[in-house]
Amino acid sequence: MTDNSYAAAGVDIAAGARAVDLMSAAVRATHTPDVVGGVGSFGGLYRAPGAAGQVLVSSTDGVGTKLKIAIALGRHDTIGRDLVHHCIDDILTLGARPLFFLDYIGINSIAPETVAAIVGGLAAACRDHGVALVGGETAELPDLYAPCDYDLAGFIVGTVAEADIVDGRTVEAGDVVIGLPSDGLHTNGYSLARRVFADADLHAYAPELGTSLGVELLRPHRCYLPEVAPWLGRGIVKAMAHITGGGLPGNVPRTLPGGLAAALDPTAWDVPPIFRLIEQRGRVPRAEMYRVFNMGIGYTIICAAPHAGELLAALPDARGIGHIVPLPHDHDAVEARVLGLA
Amino acid sequence: MTDNSYAAAGVDIAAGARAVDLMSAAVRATHTPDVVGGVGSFGGLYRAPGAAGQVLVSSTDGVGTKLKIAIALGRHDTIGRDLVHHCIDDILTLGARPLFFLDYIGINSIAPETVAAIVGGLAAACRDHGVALVGGETAELPDLYAPCDYDLAGFIVGTVAEADIVDGRTVEAGDVVIGLPSDGLHTNGYSLARRVFADADLHAYAPELGTSLGVELLRPHRCYLPEVAPWLGRGIVKAMAHITGGGLPGNVPRTLPGGLAAALDPTAWDVPPIFRLIEQRGRVPRAEMYRVFNMGIGYTIICAAPHAGELLAALPDARGIGHIVPLPHDHDAVEARVLGLA
Repeated sequence: MTDNSYAAAGVDIAAGARAVDLMSAAVRATHTPDVVGGVGSFGGLYRAPGAAGQVLVSSTDGVGTKLKIAIALGRHDTIGRDLVHHCIDDILTLGARPLFFLDYIGINSIAPETVAAIVGGLAAACRDHGVALVGGETAELPDLYAPCDYDLAGFIVGTVAEADIVDGRTVEAGDVVIGLPSDGLHTNGYSLARRVFADADLHAYAPELGTSLGVELLRPHRCYLPEVAPWLGRGIVKAMAHITGGGLPGNVPRTLPGGLAAALDPTAWDVPPIFRLIEQRGRVPRAEMYRVFNMGIGYTIICAAPHAGELLAALPDARGIGHIVPLPHDHDAVEARVLGLA
Repeated sequence: MTDNSYAAAGVDIAAGARAVDLMSAAVRATHTPDVVGGVGSFGGLYRAPGAAGQVLVSSTDGVGTKLKIAIALGRHDTIGRDLVHHCIDDILTLGARPLFFLDYIGINSIAPETVAAIVGGLAAACRDHGVALVGGETAELPDLYAPCDYDLAGFIVGTVAEADIVDGRTVEAGDVVIGLPSDGLHTNGYSLARRVFADADLHAYAPELGTSLGVELLRPHRCYLPEVAPWLGRGIVKAMAHITGGGLPGNVPRTLPGGLAAALDPTAWDVPPIFRLIEQRGRVPRAEMYRVFNMGIGYTIICAAPHAGELLAALPDARGIGHIVPLPHDHDAVEARVLGLA
């Protein structure tokens, strides 16, 4: 006779409980004084920002098929860091500092150590940046995910004074575009990269990368909060963009007022070897490379020209990569508002 | 030669843009006056609750393999409602009213109409309950999801005055447990239900259900906010539980102080036909049924006995289903703290 218990249907409640045990210390360690109560409630409790005029800034994202690299390598302790850093960077573009984070894991079957490693990475990144990990859900969905597969989504809430929201409205022609370097692919373009490297050995040393392809592809998404935070609320930063899906042409224009374009100089920074390798090995057109990958610039800041020197001096990794110009043509499609690339 | 564009790698940026077009009006319609700015930013902006002493309550969840029923039936316009109602109910147990919501969709390939139907359902439920849909991410992950498959996760933030948090700390022996009826399975137990009905025709009329199995299994999760909201902040409600995975035994004890148990009377309400059908057809042990399914009770409220009459009179669907007793044994495992079931 069929065993029609929940366990037989592929849902292992004991493994879920064990995963919670394994991760709870790491989660608790992220709890800041504004967290109310403990773990295990139906909701995460966080004291609302007390000052008047505060705006909550929230965002959700995943890490794309970078997951498949983590799964292939059996390395699950950094993918959570990718997710937290990605979400922090998203709300940072609006001038917001992160408050709290929640995660969703959909998984074929709960291997407690795998889930604990994922959440351990999330929690470590949260701690590094003062973010409280206040909730999460791990859903065992054997009919949706293949064995060993999982998906991972994150939700972040931060805060900014309404008067300090960075929204690009004061950007004007002549302003400078500053680029901050990425740490590899971050979390975008993996469907294409994995196709290009479909036959490659992830473990083999790649001389042009100075490491193995697997290590390079798994490098965590960089968090720009430590560098950018000192500049918030000072009226210097006019617009910021996180260079994710769509690359520089898809993201820089998102914060430009109408009638303006960003003229970028692709010789102003070195395109890291991993992107050159993908381009050559996959014979990917240069324009497509800029549209899919960050190409070495993970975050951009737009400021008035007189402030650029001060910013560049304080951010040693940063480069001036272009400037704002009047839109030289009639069409205002997003991608037509970045000039100079490919 | 291989086409190494992003589209060839399975990521269709144009379909994504079209999906955004299709859903943007529905999303905008959820925007309350506290939403700052529009759609398409790196983060959703929501004015923080102004009064001092407010706590933000957040939660994340998915809808489990109920998704597979929606996918099998090609009906994607109600699953979003399931998710929003589930998340509202989760934070409602703490006394919180919802403010804003974000969704994450991981999908094999973006069929714009499917994604728009999912988000349309989310947006309709958000509007019904005054919740702003301030953000979302649709990730096209062809290597993670099978064709036509997707996963769906939601993230909600609500608010409650710290003094009004409902946390069960005043629950004592003699208090009454009130149950509010569920609308079918809600979003739990689908891995088991789908196993039991693996050979059944979802479209065929099932006389014992008064409808088809497919329609019954796709009934949206009930939202308890309209019934429960009038009772918040009045010092009457001592504890609330949302009956999700783990059923009554797994959820009611989550808000009981140590040393107490809930003695439930399973004859106090009618177990709806769908649960009886699953039990019989699958020969599922009764104890397992209570542990996996809500069995007809989707939400519980604990109050002092003198208040029970008032609550029951105002909530015509509600039933007194048990009362609080001293824990009659030494072990305090969660499930051992509900007595009387099976």
